[in-house]
Amino acid sequence: MHKTKVRVVEDVLDANNTIARANREDFDRAGVKVVNLMSAPGAGKTSLLERALDGLAQQGVRPGVLEGDVQGSFDADRLSLLHVPVTQLNTDGGFGGECHLDANMVRSALPSLPLDEIDLLIIENVGNLVCPAEFRVGADVRMMVASVTEGEEKPLKYPLMFRACELVVINKIDLLEHLDFDLDRFLANLEQVHPGVEYLLTSARTGDGVEALRDRLVAIAARAGAAA
Amino acid sequence: MHKTKVRVVEDVLDANNTIARANREDFDRAGVKVVNLMSAPGAGKTSLLERALDGLAQQGVRPGVLEGDVQGSFDADRLSLLHVPVTQLNTDGGFGGECHLDANMVRSALPSLPLDEIDLLIIENVGNLVCPAEFRVGADVRMMVASVTEGEEKPLKYPLMFRACELVVINKIDLLEHLDFDLDRFLANLEQVHPGVEYLLTSARTGDGVEALRDRLVAIAARAGAAA
Repeated sequence: MHKTKVRVVEDVLDANNTIARANREDFDRAGVKVVNLMSAPGAGKTSLLERALDGLAQQGVRPGVLEGDVQGSFDADRLSLLHVPVTQLNTDGGFGGECHLDANMVRSALPSLPLDEIDLLIIENVGNLVCPAEFRVGADVRMMVASVTEGEEKPLKYPLMFRACELVVINKIDLLEHLDFDLDRFLANLEQVHPGVEYLLTSARTGDGVEALRDRLVAIAARAGAAA
Repeated sequence: MHKTKVRVVEDVLDANNTIARANREDFDRAGVKVVNLMSAPGAGKTSLLERALDGLAQQGVRPGVLEGDVQGSFDADRLSLLHVPVTQLNTDGGFGGECHLDANMVRSALPSLPLDEIDLLIIENVGNLVCPAEFRVGADVRMMVASVTEGEEKPLKYPLMFRACELVVINKIDLLEHLDFDLDRFLANLEQVHPGVEYLLTSARTGDGVEALRDRLVAIAARAGAAA
Protein backbone atom coordinates (compact mmCIF):
# COMPACT_ATOMS: atom_id res chain seq x y z
CA MET A 1 0.00 0.00 0.00
CA HIS A 2 1.66 3.22 -1.06
CA LYS A 3 1.79 6.36 1.03
CA THR A 4 -1.04 8.31 -0.59
CA LYS A 5 -3.45 5.47 -0.02
CA VAL A 6 -2.38 5.15 3.60
CA ARG A 7 -3.01 8.87 4.12
CA VAL A 8 -6.46 8.69 2.53
CA VAL A 9 -7.34 5.74 4.75
CA GLU A 10 -6.05 7.54 7.85
CA ASP A 11 -8.16 10.59 6.97
CA VAL A 12 -11.24 8.41 6.59
CA LEU A 13 -10.65 6.70 9.94
CA ASP A 14 -9.87 10.02 11.62
CA ALA A 15 -13.14 11.55 10.40
CA ASN A 16 -14.93 8.39 11.47
CA ASN A 17 -13.47 8.61 14.98
CA THR A 18 -14.62 12.21 15.32
CA ILE A 19 -18.19 11.24 14.48
CA ALA A 20 -17.97 8.16 16.71
CA ARG A 21 -17.07 10.43 19.67
CA ALA A 22 -20.11 12.61 18.92
CA ASN A 23 -22.30 9.49 18.89
CA ARG A 24 -20.79 8.38 22.17
CA GLU A 25 -21.54 11.73 23.79
CA ASP A 26 -25.17 11.50 22.66
CA PHE A 27 -25.47 7.96 24.03
CA ASP A 28 -23.86 9.01 27.33
CA ARG A 29 -26.20 11.99 27.63
CA ALA A 30 -29.18 9.67 27.18
CA GLY A 31 -27.76 7.18 29.68
CA VAL A 32 -27.65 4.42 27.08
CA LYS A 33 -24.89 1.83 27.01
CA VAL A 34 -24.00 0.60 23.56
CA VAL A 35 -22.67 -2.74 22.29
CA ASN A 36 -21.24 -3.08 18.78
CA LEU A 37 -21.95 -6.74 17.95
CA MET A 38 -19.94 -8.21 15.09
CA SER A 39 -19.37 -11.57 13.38
CA ALA A 40 -18.97 -13.33 10.06
CA PRO A 41 -22.21 -13.90 8.10
CA GLY A 42 -24.33 -16.62 9.67
CA ALA A 43 -22.46 -16.94 12.98
CA GLY A 44 -25.73 -16.50 14.86
CA LYS A 45 -25.85 -12.89 16.09
CA THR A 46 -29.58 -12.51 15.54
CA SER A 47 -30.48 -15.93 16.97
CA LEU A 48 -28.42 -15.16 20.08
CA LEU A 49 -30.12 -11.78 20.45
CA GLU A 50 -33.55 -13.40 20.11
CA ARG A 51 -32.66 -15.54 23.12
CA ALA A 52 -30.65 -13.07 25.20
CA LEU A 53 -32.86 -9.98 24.83
CA ASP A 54 -35.91 -11.96 25.86
CA GLY A 55 -35.94 -11.62 29.65
CA LEU A 56 -33.73 -8.53 29.87
CA ALA A 57 -36.71 -6.36 30.79
CA GLN A 58 -37.38 -8.58 33.85
CA GLN A 59 -33.85 -7.72 34.98
CA GLY A 60 -34.59 -4.02 34.70
CA VAL A 61 -32.81 -3.39 31.40
CA ARG A 62 -34.72 -2.00 28.42
CA PRO A 63 -32.92 -3.04 25.24
CA GLY A 64 -33.08 -1.61 21.74
CA VAL A 65 -31.47 -2.80 18.52
CA LEU A 66 -29.94 -1.01 15.55
CA GLU A 67 -29.85 -3.60 12.80
CA GLY A 68 -27.18 -3.18 10.12
CA ASP A 69 -27.58 -5.05 6.84
CA VAL A 70 -26.55 -4.51 3.25
CA GLN A 71 -30.15 -5.04 2.19
CA GLY A 72 -33.48 -6.22 3.59
CA SER A 73 -34.90 -6.30 7.10
CA PHE A 74 -35.03 -10.03 7.88
CA ASP A 75 -33.22 -9.78 11.21
CA ALA A 76 -35.05 -6.62 12.26
CA ASP A 77 -38.38 -8.33 11.52
CA ARG A 78 -37.34 -11.31 13.65
CA LEU A 79 -36.23 -9.15 16.58
CA SER A 80 -39.27 -6.89 16.50
CA LEU A 81 -41.34 -9.94 17.46
CA LEU A 82 -39.71 -9.59 20.91
CA HIS A 83 -41.45 -6.19 21.27
CA VAL A 84 -38.07 -4.52 21.44
CA PRO A 85 -37.55 -1.24 19.52
CA VAL A 86 -35.61 -2.11 16.37
CA THR A 87 -34.29 0.34 13.79
CA GLN A 88 -33.12 -0.94 10.41
CA LEU A 89 -30.03 0.57 8.80
CA ASN A 90 -29.28 -0.58 5.24
CA THR A 91 -25.86 0.07 3.76
CA ASP A 92 -26.77 -0.30 0.08
CA GLY A 93 -27.03 2.98 -1.76
CA GLY A 94 -26.67 2.68 -5.51
CA PHE A 95 -23.35 0.87 -5.00
CA GLY A 96 -23.17 -2.83 -4.20
CA GLY A 97 -23.42 -1.96 -0.52
CA GLU A 98 -21.03 -1.14 2.30
CA CYS A 99 -19.58 -4.14 4.14
CA HIS A 100 -19.68 -2.48 7.57
CA LEU A 101 -21.36 0.19 9.63
CA ASP A 102 -19.43 3.39 10.21
CA ALA A 103 -19.99 6.20 12.71
CA ASN A 104 -21.79 8.40 10.21
CA MET A 105 -24.31 5.71 9.27
CA VAL A 106 -25.07 5.18 12.97
CA ARG A 107 -25.33 8.96 13.42
CA SER A 108 -27.87 9.13 10.59
CA ALA A 109 -29.98 6.57 12.48
CA LEU A 110 -29.88 8.42 15.82
CA PRO A 111 -33.12 10.38 15.22
CA SER A 112 -34.94 7.06 14.67
CA LEU A 113 -33.68 5.53 17.90
CA PRO A 114 -35.91 5.90 21.00
CA LEU A 115 -32.92 6.62 23.26
CA ASP A 116 -35.18 7.85 26.07
CA GLU A 117 -36.94 4.50 26.23
CA ILE A 118 -33.93 2.18 26.34
CA ASP A 119 -30.94 1.46 28.59
CA LEU A 120 -28.92 -0.72 26.27
CA LEU A 121 -28.51 -0.43 22.52
CA ILE A 122 -27.20 -3.40 20.58
CA ILE A 123 -25.81 -2.40 17.19
CA GLU A 124 -25.85 -5.55 15.07
CA ASN A 125 -23.15 -4.89 12.49
CA VAL A 126 -22.98 -6.23 8.92
CA GLY A 127 -21.69 -9.82 8.83
CA ASN A 128 -17.97 -9.42 8.09
CA LEU A 129 -14.76 -10.19 10.00
CA VAL A 130 -12.64 -7.37 8.55
CA CYS A 131 -13.94 -3.81 8.17
CA PRO A 132 -16.44 -3.63 11.06
CA ALA A 133 -13.42 -3.87 13.41
CA GLU A 134 -11.79 -0.88 11.69
CA PHE A 135 -14.66 1.56 12.08
CA ARG A 136 -15.67 2.71 15.53
CA VAL A 137 -19.31 3.71 15.84
CA GLY A 138 -19.37 5.14 19.36
CA ALA A 139 -20.06 1.95 21.33
CA ASP A 140 -19.02 1.26 24.94
CA VAL A 141 -18.23 -2.36 24.22
CA ARG A 142 -17.26 -4.31 21.13
CA MET A 143 -18.34 -7.93 21.16
CA MET A 144 -18.13 -10.64 18.53
CA VAL A 145 -19.71 -13.98 17.80
CA ALA A 146 -17.48 -16.72 16.37
CA SER A 147 -19.16 -19.91 15.23
CA VAL A 148 -17.38 -23.22 15.81
CA THR A 149 -18.29 -24.14 12.22
CA GLU A 150 -15.83 -21.50 10.96
CA GLY A 151 -12.68 -23.34 12.05
CA GLU A 152 -9.95 -22.90 14.66
CA GLU A 153 -7.64 -20.62 12.71
CA LYS A 154 -9.99 -17.63 12.42
CA PRO A 155 -8.35 -15.58 15.23
CA LEU A 156 -5.03 -15.83 13.37
CA LYS A 157 -6.59 -14.94 9.99
CA TYR A 158 -8.70 -12.01 11.24
CA PRO A 159 -6.64 -10.79 14.22
CA LEU A 160 -7.91 -7.20 14.26
CA MET A 161 -11.48 -8.36 14.85
CA PHE A 162 -10.58 -10.73 17.68
CA ARG A 163 -8.28 -8.08 19.21
CA ALA A 164 -10.92 -5.33 19.03
CA CYS A 165 -13.48 -7.17 21.15
CA GLU A 166 -13.70 -7.38 24.92
CA LEU A 167 -15.91 -10.47 24.73
CA VAL A 168 -15.83 -13.33 22.22
CA VAL A 169 -19.02 -15.41 22.12
CA ILE A 170 -18.23 -18.87 20.77
CA ASN A 171 -21.54 -20.05 19.31
CA LYS A 172 -23.11 -23.23 17.88
CA ILE A 173 -21.42 -25.45 20.47
CA ASP A 174 -24.30 -27.91 20.01
CA LEU A 175 -22.55 -28.85 16.73
CA LEU A 176 -19.17 -29.58 18.35
CA GLU A 177 -19.73 -33.32 18.39
CA HIS A 178 -20.35 -33.33 14.63
CA LEU A 179 -17.29 -31.24 13.69
CA ASP A 180 -13.51 -31.73 13.64
CA PHE A 181 -13.26 -28.36 15.42
CA ASP A 182 -10.62 -28.40 18.18
CA LEU A 183 -11.83 -25.96 20.84
CA ASP A 184 -8.51 -25.96 22.72
CA ARG A 185 -6.68 -25.00 19.56
CA PHE A 186 -9.18 -22.20 18.87
CA LEU A 187 -8.72 -20.89 22.41
CA ALA A 188 -4.92 -21.04 22.08
CA ASN A 189 -5.16 -19.06 18.82
CA LEU A 190 -7.48 -16.56 20.50
CA GLU A 191 -5.09 -16.19 23.45
CA GLN A 192 -2.24 -15.59 21.00
CA VAL A 193 -3.91 -12.63 19.27
CA HIS A 194 -5.76 -11.25 22.32
CA PRO A 195 -4.19 -12.46 25.58
CA GLY A 196 -6.65 -12.70 28.46
CA VAL A 197 -9.75 -11.82 26.45
CA GLU A 198 -12.96 -13.16 27.95
CA TYR A 199 -15.11 -15.64 26.09
CA LEU A 200 -18.43 -17.43 26.49
CA LEU A 201 -19.56 -20.75 25.03
CA THR A 202 -23.11 -20.61 23.71
CA SER A 203 -25.67 -22.36 21.57
CA ALA A 204 -28.47 -20.15 20.35
CA ARG A 205 -30.23 -23.36 19.32
CA THR A 206 -30.28 -25.14 22.69
CA GLY A 207 -29.98 -22.04 24.86
CA ASP A 208 -26.70 -23.17 26.44
CA GLY A 209 -24.73 -20.19 27.72
CA VAL A 210 -27.45 -17.67 26.87
CA GLU A 211 -28.06 -16.84 30.52
CA ALA A 212 -24.38 -15.95 30.94
CA LEU A 213 -24.59 -13.72 27.87
CA ARG A 214 -27.73 -12.04 29.25
CA ASP A 215 -25.98 -11.48 32.59
CA ARG A 216 -23.13 -9.90 30.72
CA LEU A 217 -25.50 -7.51 28.94
CA VAL A 218 -27.10 -6.59 32.28
CA ALA A 219 -23.65 -5.84 33.71
CA ILE A 220 -22.77 -3.63 30.74
CA ALA A 221 -26.02 -1.69 31.13
CA ALA A 222 -25.17 -1.13 34.82
CA ARG A 223 -21.65 0.19 34.24
CA ALA A 224 -20.79 3.55 35.74
CA GLY A 225 -20.20 6.52 33.49
CA ALA A 226 -23.63 7.19 32.09
CA ALA A 227 -25.10 10.62 32.62
CA ALA A 228 -28.61 9.44 33.39
CA MET B 1 -25.03 7.86 -0.05
CA HIS B 2 -24.60 11.34 -1.50
CA LYS B 3 -23.50 12.07 -5.05
CA THR B 4 -19.81 12.82 -4.41
CA LYS B 5 -19.35 9.52 -2.68
CA VAL B 6 -21.11 7.68 -5.49
CA ARG B 7 -18.77 9.31 -8.02
CA VAL B 8 -15.63 8.40 -6.03
CA VAL B 9 -16.85 4.81 -5.77
CA GLU B 10 -17.59 4.71 -9.51
CA ASP B 11 -14.10 6.01 -10.26
CA VAL B 12 -12.54 3.35 -8.05
CA LEU B 13 -14.55 0.58 -9.71
CA ASP B 14 -13.83 2.00 -13.17
CA ALA B 15 -10.07 1.99 -12.52
CA ASN B 16 -10.41 -1.50 -11.09
CA ASN B 17 -12.19 -2.75 -14.21
CA THR B 18 -9.44 -1.34 -16.43
CA ILE B 19 -6.78 -3.26 -14.51
CA ALA B 20 -8.98 -6.38 -14.40
CA ARG B 21 -9.13 -6.31 -18.23
CA ALA B 22 -5.32 -6.09 -18.37
CA ASN B 23 -5.09 -9.11 -16.05
CA ARG B 24 -7.55 -10.99 -18.21
CA GLU B 25 -5.50 -10.31 -21.34
CA ASP B 26 -2.37 -11.62 -19.63
CA PHE B 27 -4.19 -14.75 -18.49
CA ASP B 28 -5.62 -15.30 -21.99
CA ARG B 29 -2.21 -14.87 -23.57
CA ALA B 30 -0.82 -17.52 -21.23
CA GLY B 31 -3.76 -19.83 -21.94
CA VAL B 32 -4.76 -19.88 -18.28
CA LYS B 33 -8.39 -20.01 -17.20
CA VAL B 34 -9.12 -18.21 -13.94
CA VAL B 35 -11.71 -18.79 -11.22
CA ASN B 36 -12.42 -16.14 -8.58
CA LEU B 37 -13.53 -18.24 -5.59
CA MET B 38 -15.43 -16.39 -2.89
CA SER B 39 -17.31 -17.11 0.35
CA ALA B 40 -17.91 -15.98 3.92
CA PRO B 41 -15.13 -16.79 6.40
CA GLY B 42 -15.04 -20.49 7.23
CA ALA B 43 -17.41 -21.73 4.50
CA GLY B 44 -14.81 -24.28 3.43
CA LYS B 45 -13.09 -22.87 0.31
CA THR B 46 -9.67 -24.23 1.23
CA SER B 47 -10.96 -27.63 2.35
CA LEU B 48 -12.87 -27.99 -0.91
CA LEU B 49 -9.78 -27.03 -2.91
CA GLU B 50 -7.68 -29.57 -1.01
CA ARG B 51 -10.11 -32.22 -2.21
CA ALA B 52 -10.91 -30.95 -5.71
CA LEU B 53 -7.39 -29.98 -6.85
CA ASP B 54 -6.05 -33.38 -5.87
CA GLY B 55 -6.59 -35.48 -8.98
CA LEU B 56 -6.90 -32.59 -11.43
CA ALA B 57 -3.46 -33.36 -12.90
CA GLN B 58 -4.60 -36.90 -13.80
CA GLN B 59 -7.34 -35.24 -15.85
CA GLY B 60 -4.76 -33.19 -17.73
CA VAL B 61 -5.30 -29.90 -15.90
CA ARG B 62 -2.40 -28.25 -14.08
CA PRO B 63 -3.86 -26.03 -11.33
CA GLY B 64 -2.31 -23.11 -9.48
CA VAL B 65 -3.65 -21.06 -6.58
CA LEU B 66 -3.47 -17.39 -5.65
CA GLU B 67 -4.34 -17.27 -1.99
CA GLY B 68 -5.84 -14.03 -0.66
CA ASP B 69 -5.83 -13.39 3.08
CA VAL B 70 -5.73 -10.37 5.32
CA GLN B 71 -2.80 -11.91 7.15
CA GLY B 72 -0.87 -15.18 7.44
CA SER B 73 -0.40 -18.07 5.02
CA PHE B 74 -2.36 -20.89 6.69
CA ASP B 75 -4.39 -21.82 3.63
CA ALA B 76 -1.43 -21.46 1.26
CA ASP B 77 0.60 -23.77 3.51
CA ARG B 78 -2.20 -26.34 3.47
CA LEU B 79 -2.57 -26.22 -0.32
CA SER B 80 1.15 -26.34 -1.03
CA LEU B 81 1.14 -29.86 0.47
CA LEU B 82 -0.70 -30.88 -2.71
CA HIS B 83 2.41 -29.93 -4.72
CA VAL B 84 0.41 -27.26 -6.51
CA PRO B 85 2.04 -23.85 -7.11
CA VAL B 86 0.57 -21.48 -4.51
CA THR B 87 1.22 -17.74 -4.25
CA GLN B 88 0.21 -15.88 -1.10
CA LEU B 89 -1.28 -12.41 -1.36
CA ASN B 90 -1.81 -10.59 1.94
CA THR B 91 -4.06 -7.54 2.04
CA ASP B 92 -2.79 -6.01 5.28
CA GLY B 93 -0.53 -3.03 4.75
CA GLY B 94 -0.30 -0.71 7.71
CA PHE B 95 -4.11 -0.43 7.79
CA GLY B 96 -6.26 -3.09 9.40
CA GLY B 97 -6.35 -4.94 6.09
CA GLU B 98 -8.45 -4.90 2.95
CA CYS B 99 -11.55 -7.10 3.07
CA HIS B 100 -11.29 -8.22 -0.57
CA LEU B 101 -8.89 -8.69 -3.46
CA ASP B 102 -8.96 -6.09 -6.21
CA ALA B 103 -7.53 -6.18 -9.72
CA ASN B 104 -4.41 -4.25 -8.79
CA MET B 105 -3.51 -6.62 -5.94
CA VAL B 106 -3.87 -9.56 -8.33
CA ARG B 107 -1.79 -7.66 -10.91
CA SER B 108 0.97 -7.16 -8.34
CA ALA B 109 1.06 -10.93 -7.83
CA LEU B 110 1.30 -11.80 -11.56
CA PRO B 111 5.12 -11.88 -11.64
CA SER B 112 5.05 -14.49 -8.85
CA LEU B 113 2.61 -16.75 -10.68
CA PRO B 114 4.06 -19.53 -12.88
CA LEU B 115 1.50 -18.93 -15.65
CA ASP B 116 3.49 -21.05 -18.14
CA GLU B 117 3.20 -24.08 -15.89
CA ILE B 118 -0.53 -24.02 -15.16
CA ASP B 119 -3.84 -24.29 -17.05
CA LEU B 120 -6.21 -23.18 -14.31
CA LEU B 121 -5.68 -20.52 -11.66
CA ILE B 122 -7.92 -20.49 -8.62
CA ILE B 123 -7.96 -17.12 -6.88
CA GLU B 124 -9.13 -17.78 -3.32
CA ASN B 125 -10.54 -14.44 -2.25
CA VAL B 126 -10.70 -13.01 1.28
CA GLY B 127 -13.60 -14.48 3.28
CA ASN B 128 -16.36 -11.88 2.88
CA LEU B 129 -19.81 -11.85 1.24
CA VAL B 130 -19.85 -8.17 0.28
CA CYS B 131 -16.85 -6.45 -1.34
CA PRO B 132 -15.24 -9.37 -3.20
CA ALA B 133 -18.34 -9.39 -5.44
CA GLU B 134 -17.84 -5.69 -6.22
CA PHE B 135 -14.25 -5.89 -7.47
CA ARG B 136 -13.48 -7.81 -10.64
CA VAL B 137 -9.98 -9.25 -10.78
CA GLY B 138 -9.87 -10.55 -14.37
CA ALA B 139 -11.31 -14.03 -13.81
CA ASP B 140 -13.22 -16.09 -16.40
CA VAL B 141 -15.59 -17.45 -13.80
CA ARG B 142 -16.84 -16.28 -10.42
CA MET B 143 -17.80 -19.06 -8.06
CA MET B 144 -18.86 -19.02 -4.44
CA VAL B 145 -19.11 -21.43 -1.54
CA ALA B 146 -22.11 -21.09 0.79
CA SER B 147 -22.12 -23.20 3.93
CA VAL B 148 -25.42 -24.66 5.12
CA THR B 149 -24.45 -23.51 8.64
CA GLU B 150 -24.91 -19.88 7.54
CA GLY B 151 -28.69 -20.04 7.20
CA GLU B 152 -31.25 -19.97 4.39
CA GLU B 153 -31.62 -16.20 4.07
CA LYS B 154 -28.07 -15.40 2.94
CA PRO B 155 -28.94 -15.03 -0.80
CA LEU B 156 -31.47 -12.34 0.16
CA LYS B 157 -29.07 -10.56 2.54
CA TYR B 158 -26.05 -10.61 0.22
CA PRO B 159 -27.71 -10.62 -3.23
CA LEU B 160 -24.82 -9.09 -5.17
CA MET B 161 -22.54 -11.99 -4.25
CA PHE B 162 -25.06 -14.68 -5.18
CA ARG B 163 -25.89 -12.82 -8.39
CA ALA B 164 -22.24 -12.38 -9.41
CA CYS B 165 -21.46 -16.10 -9.42
CA GLU B 166 -22.10 -18.60 -12.19
CA LEU B 167 -21.81 -21.51 -9.76
CA VAL B 168 -22.87 -21.71 -6.11
CA VAL B 169 -21.25 -24.55 -4.16
CA ILE B 170 -23.43 -25.44 -1.18
CA ASN B 171 -21.00 -26.98 1.30
CA LYS B 172 -21.04 -28.85 4.63
CA ILE B 173 -24.08 -30.91 3.64
CA ASP B 174 -22.86 -33.60 6.06
CA LEU B 175 -24.18 -31.30 8.80
CA LEU B 176 -27.69 -30.98 7.33
CA GLU B 177 -29.15 -33.59 9.68
CA HIS B 178 -27.91 -31.62 12.71
CA LEU B 179 -29.22 -28.23 11.58
CA ASP B 180 -32.60 -26.56 11.19
CA PHE B 181 -31.43 -25.45 7.72
CA ASP B 182 -34.19 -25.80 5.10
CA LEU B 183 -32.42 -26.52 1.80
CA ASP B 184 -35.56 -25.96 -0.29
CA ARG B 185 -36.00 -22.53 1.24
CA PHE B 186 -32.34 -21.67 0.56
CA LEU B 187 -32.73 -22.80 -3.07
CA ALA B 188 -35.92 -20.74 -3.45
CA ASN B 189 -34.08 -17.68 -2.09
CA LEU B 190 -31.18 -18.35 -4.46
CA GLU B 191 -33.55 -18.69 -7.42
CA GLN B 192 -35.17 -15.39 -6.42
CA VAL B 193 -31.91 -13.39 -6.56
CA HIS B 194 -30.24 -15.33 -9.38
CA PRO B 195 -32.80 -17.23 -11.50
CA GLY B 196 -31.42 -20.37 -13.10
CA VAL B 197 -27.99 -20.21 -11.47
CA GLU B 198 -26.29 -23.60 -11.19
CA TYR B 199 -25.39 -25.09 -7.85
CA LEU B 200 -23.63 -28.13 -6.45
CA LEU B 201 -24.10 -29.84 -3.09
CA THR B 202 -20.80 -30.78 -1.45
CA SER B 203 -19.16 -31.87 1.75
CA ALA B 204 -15.43 -31.22 1.90
CA ARG B 205 -15.42 -33.45 4.98
CA THR B 206 -16.94 -36.60 3.46
CA GLY B 207 -16.01 -35.87 -0.14
CA ASP B 208 -19.63 -35.83 -1.33
CA GLY B 209 -19.99 -33.79 -4.50
CA VAL B 210 -16.27 -33.11 -4.82
CA GLU B 211 -16.01 -35.13 -8.04
CA ALA B 212 -18.72 -32.95 -9.60
CA LEU B 213 -16.81 -29.85 -8.54
CA ARG B 214 -13.59 -31.27 -10.00
CA ASP B 215 -15.40 -32.06 -13.28
CA ARG B 216 -16.62 -28.49 -13.34
CA LEU B 217 -13.06 -27.17 -12.94
CA VAL B 218 -11.88 -29.45 -15.76
CA ALA B 219 -14.66 -28.10 -18.00
CA ILE B 220 -13.69 -24.51 -17.20
CA ALA B 221 -10.05 -25.22 -18.05
CA ALA B 222 -11.16 -26.67 -21.41
CA ARG B 223 -13.34 -23.72 -22.43
CA ALA B 224 -12.61 -22.15 -25.80
CA GLY B 225 -11.20 -18.65 -25.96
CA ALA B 226 -7.69 -19.11 -24.64
CA ALA B 227 -4.84 -17.96 -26.84
CA ALA B 228 -2.57 -20.90 -26.09
